[in-house]
Amino acid sequence: MSATDELLRNNARYAETFRAGGLQAPPALGVAVVACMDARLDVHRILGLEEGDAHVIRNAGGVITEDAIRSLVISQRLLGTREILLIHHTGCGMLGLREEEIKEDIRREVGIRPPFPLEAFEDLEEDVRRSVARVKDSPFIPHKESVRGFIYDVETGRLREVPAEA
Amino acid sequence: MSATDELLRNNARYAETFRAGGLQAPPALGVAVVACMDARLDVHRILGLEEGDAHVIRNAGGVITEDAIRSLVISQRLLGTREILLIHHTGCGMLGLREEEIKEDIRREVGIRPPFPLEAFEDLEEDVRRSVARVKDSPFIPHKESVRGFIYDVETGRLREVPAEA
Repeated sequence: MSATDELLRNNARYAETFRAGGLQAPPALGVAVVACMDARLDVHRILGLEEGDAHVIRNAGGVITEDAIRSLVISQRLLGTREILLIHHTGCGMLGLREEEIKEDIRREVGIRPPFPLEAFEDLEEDVRRSVARVKDSPFIPHKESVRGFIYDVETGRLREVPAEA
Repeated sequence: MSATDELLRNNARYAETFRAGGLQAPPALGVAVVACMDARLDVHRILGLEEGDAHVIRNAGGVITEDAIRSLVISQRLLGTREILLIHHTGCGMLGLREEEIKEDIRREVGIRPPFPLEAFEDLEEDVRRSVARVKDSPFIPHKESVRGFIYDVETGRLREVPAEA
């Protein structure tokens, strides 16, 4: 059995005891979270979120890309969220990743060089601040009063806030 | 107290009973999930995922954008995943969204038109198939043997697989 089939069996069990129907699309807490895709982060458990509470946007690194901006625009403008939490984490695979080498490996293998940045970074705190700045610099995001950046410690389960200035 | 502060209090409680330390970055199940950011989807509960099991990539709509491709490239090439699940859902805010009107509203308000597509769609099944096709068409993703698309029903908690052909 593939892992996908195993997950579908888990879903059948989830559906049997499902109680979260009748919820509306706008997040009850008015919050959007942007976090890394890392397998060790269960964003709902980390923040104590229930179904219906918050938008959760995730990508490699939890960085603010144009696609993250697109999602935040829809989150704030169409679905009424006002607060943003950005979550990076210790032990991230994007930390110190050799972007040029990887792109060159891919080009050698498939004949085309990826036309997008991999968004690797050298310093965790610095990249959280850069992501906060990208949100604040975007003209398309209306609500920037509460844009806060955090580092999640995968060994303790604890979030630490990254201060705005170094 | 802001919603963000409330979530930080929840995190302090999570950290007190945290038992998921010592996990490695490569996902234990070799799976990457791409899902919509919608607040009603707790991807871990829906699929019975534990910390460490799978990458979770999320954006508005759960569509395969260039950023989703970037995340999948890192997931497969650097962290060893082999299977991909795509999850859209009933009652999605991206369904039937008037993309041109919204972009025009934004332009009127902030003076700049968003230079990116909002990725709205008209038909749920069709868009799942389009996302599966975008993954399969990408030269940068090495493992395409198991790329399966699903629609999550927000009223029943159940996933339904979208067949490859209409």
